[in-house]
Amino acid sequence: MPNDVGSQWNAAELVEAAREHLISPAEEMAKLGTVTRPMLTTGDGVYVTNAQGRRLLDGPAGMWCTQIGYNRREIADAISAQALRLSYNSPWYSVNGPSAELAARIASLTPGDLDHVFFTTGGSSAVDSALRFVQFYNNVLGRPDKKTILCRIDGYHGSTHLTAACSGRAGNRPNFDLALDTVSFLSAPNVYRRPKGMTEADFLEFLIGEFEDRVAAIGPDRIGAFLAEPLLASGGILIPPEGYHRRILDICRRHDILYISDEVVTGFGRCGHWFASEAVFGITPDIITFAKGVTSGYVPLGGFALSDAVLARVSGENAKGSFYTNGYTYSGHPVSCAAALANIEVIERDGILAHVRDIAPYFQEQIRSLKQLPLVGDTRGTGLVACVECVTDPAAPEATDFDKEVSRRIDHHCYELGLIVRPIGNMCVLSPPLVITKAEIDSLIAILRRSIVLTQDELRAEGRWS
Amino acid sequence: MPNDVGSQWNAAELVEAAREHLISPAEEMAKLGTVTRPMLTTGDGVYVTNAQGRRLLDGPAGMWCTQIGYNRREIADAISAQALRLSYNSPWYSVNGPSAELAARIASLTPGDLDHVFFTTGGSSAVDSALRFVQFYNNVLGRPDKKTILCRIDGYHGSTHLTAACSGRAGNRPNFDLALDTVSFLSAPNVYRRPKGMTEADFLEFLIGEFEDRVAAIGPDRIGAFLAEPLLASGGILIPPEGYHRRILDICRRHDILYISDEVVTGFGRCGHWFASEAVFGITPDIITFAKGVTSGYVPLGGFALSDAVLARVSGENAKGSFYTNGYTYSGHPVSCAAALANIEVIERDGILAHVRDIAPYFQEQIRSLKQLPLVGDTRGTGLVACVECVTDPAAPEATDFDKEVSRRIDHHCYELGLIVRPIGNMCVLSPPLVITKAEIDSLIAILRRSIVLTQDELRAEGRWS
Repeated sequence: MPNDVGSQWNAAELVEAAREHLISPAEEMAKLGTVTRPMLTTGDGVYVTNAQGRRLLDGPAGMWCTQIGYNRREIADAISAQALRLSYNSPWYSVNGPSAELAARIASLTPGDLDHVFFTTGGSSAVDSALRFVQFYNNVLGRPDKKTILCRIDGYHGSTHLTAACSGRAGNRPNFDLALDTVSFLSAPNVYRRPKGMTEADFLEFLIGEFEDRVAAIGPDRIGAFLAEPLLASGGILIPPEGYHRRILDICRRHDILYISDEVVTGFGRCGHWFASEAVFGITPDIITFAKGVTSGYVPLGGFALSDAVLARVSGENAKGSFYTNGYTYSGHPVSCAAALANIEVIERDGILAHVRDIAPYFQEQIRSLKQLPLVGDTRGTGLVACVECVTDPAAPEATDFDKEVSRRIDHHCYELGLIVRPIGNMCVLSPPLVITKAEIDSLIAILRRSIVLTQDELRAEGRWS
Repeated sequence: MPNDVGSQWNAAELVEAAREHLISPAEEMAKLGTVTRPMLTTGDGVYVTNAQGRRLLDGPAGMWCTQIGYNRREIADAISAQALRLSYNSPWYSVNGPSAELAARIASLTPGDLDHVFFTTGGSSAVDSALRFVQFYNNVLGRPDKKTILCRIDGYHGSTHLTAACSGRAGNRPNFDLALDTVSFLSAPNVYRRPKGMTEADFLEFLIGEFEDRVAAIGPDRIGAFLAEPLLASGGILIPPEGYHRRILDICRRHDILYISDEVVTGFGRCGHWFASEAVFGITPDIITFAKGVTSGYVPLGGFALSDAVLARVSGENAKGSFYTNGYTYSGHPVSCAAALANIEVIERDGILAHVRDIAPYFQEQIRSLKQLPLVGDTRGTGLVACVECVTDPAAPEATDFDKEVSRRIDHHCYELGLIVRPIGNMCVLSPPLVITKAEIDSLIAILRRSIVLTQDELRAEGRWS
């Protein structure tokens, strides 16, 4: 039995197999089977290598997830050992050690009394299950109409039928049916694109007022939860005005609306803390969803942590004979949980959260230095997540197709120069592995700056921009 | 860095952590925090061991998934090697070798032209994504009303908001909101519980007639898909009458209704073939969903295979400018796909499908020998999946609470005697790892027989049954 599974196929055969047999999460259907995506073959630290042997700095940390970086023997050993020890157990009828220990560990890392944990297989299933808990909770409490989910435009919460309906990014919506009747969208807290002439303080009042008005319009008795990322990640690194989360949480508490903080991106160190809700934004929500960073992406895992006070209202003597029957074959998977335990241990042992807090100001300062380039309309971020928003016409109220083309060109130059950038509309988004060093940040910024300058030069040469 | 993550906690601490911090997929809420589920610690071959050191034959194969059994170094080595090589890549922007090779391998194992594969993280997300594809498909084809999903009572398809709505098992439904407006339920093809006096041939005609009537009542222009397990697994090992699937497929084809065969349980060898749809039931569906056995449960993975002909109608020149935007961070995860490739390789190398075909008749014969026991109302199964249905009163039209208590007692005796049985209502369900030997089947049957006899003796001694 060869250990090196898959290695009998050469790169060309694999590329061909992908083209002929694989459906990716983003397919331009007219080109299905004709597009060749880059084939990545190896990873080490903050770098990956493609099939052509090009070494690339992993700007987006995979998909906001490779916190401790690639090629970590600690994780490989932990999953191998657990696969040999106990590779599976049914969470319906039994428990395994790693899931029990991980639940306790996560309970100790979350704020407040969020001390119960339910495990799923990723971020989408984490949010789907959290929302199904809201259904269960209000049904048991005898409030079957208290079900509307308040979300934000440009929020992203997953790709199941229900979580996609809660995601307000326009690009994900065409051609799918979304369960809109239980979802109501609020404005994105997009400070950069706030109405012209409005101060940031006034914008905050606008957002809070809109929230209060919406609660009044729908009726608090019909609203089950507010579902929000601490910062909108895929929506373009939108960091709400100071005080936004605290004030909305106050309104939620007043109306018995559950506050779900979707920390799939921000959890496990992205902002220098295990979770951002309390440490960065000053709130203790009722539910925190997590995935991605919990295993540094080595094995699928997600879940949510739930407040004991909330749980107490529908359990024990308040249970009213109810059964909670929701879960997955892979809920609390022993190998996934072993990966997460090893990942948390590495983060603690190596002081990675402190490293993020130490190095983030430098990273943000370097990103902000790009603001001087004429193609850059805005730079923003916190911790180790940031974005550069490309704007060809500062007078335009929103991003134009030309802006998006510019962003794609920059990303393309970055790739050629050795940096992967997450392309989102007209934004170059960066969220590198948390273990990135100062020298690697310098390299990342140098490539990004060079790529923007190259793009500026090209556009001028083409007479399309000045 | 210790490789032995989690081992610093002793069994008592882990049991306590589970009780205090873990929410399982099935919680009787009145008892939350007071129930101690068995803690499994190790697995080897078809056996697991609990924290008390008791060795147990794994009757349900975990949760219908541990095909090649526990403690397989081939899988541990494959996932460890892949975790070191490339632990993650974003499937939106790049591909990895294992996902490309696995897509090609699965395409070669599925019937007909089901040659494109989309990967998810498990069975629920596989079915959720398949149903979202049906939405996409009919929206692109300009048939936005062709969306109803036909399902069966007692079917099980997952635990996301949408897939739970398609699951017709009564026990999973209370306290959750189910998107019923797009779902229509047909009768379970339960031959044992068919109306009194009806022949099996007449029962088939009844089921086919009901299907045709339902299509006519809803209107074929409003029906997107039929979603069906080849045999209803969690619903109680319900094997439809001969010809059921073929005749329903014919009706679907006539009305351009997609046929989704949910092979999450039957896929990867359970019935002695890679998939059961064609090899056992004679149909080539439009979509096959899979999970569980694809990795023998070692790492989370699921997905669906899709017919090229179906795909062609909404891609290439028929794409109408559409983008397919659905997927997960962990779609095509390199470590999960490496586990699946190694699992497939082991199944092939060790001739495990042929072994299942060889040994299944003996297993079924042994299960059927239990029919002679007075508490056993029915025995049924195919391949390496079977059930013993406990019936205290043969005149009762359906299972009683007493029947269910009897089944729980039998399961309890089995556990004490060294066999895990999947308890479903009044049924003792068995689907052991595919590598089970004749001697291990003898041991399984001996324990099950002894447990039924013990229960009969108890009930008689209690004067509750004769």
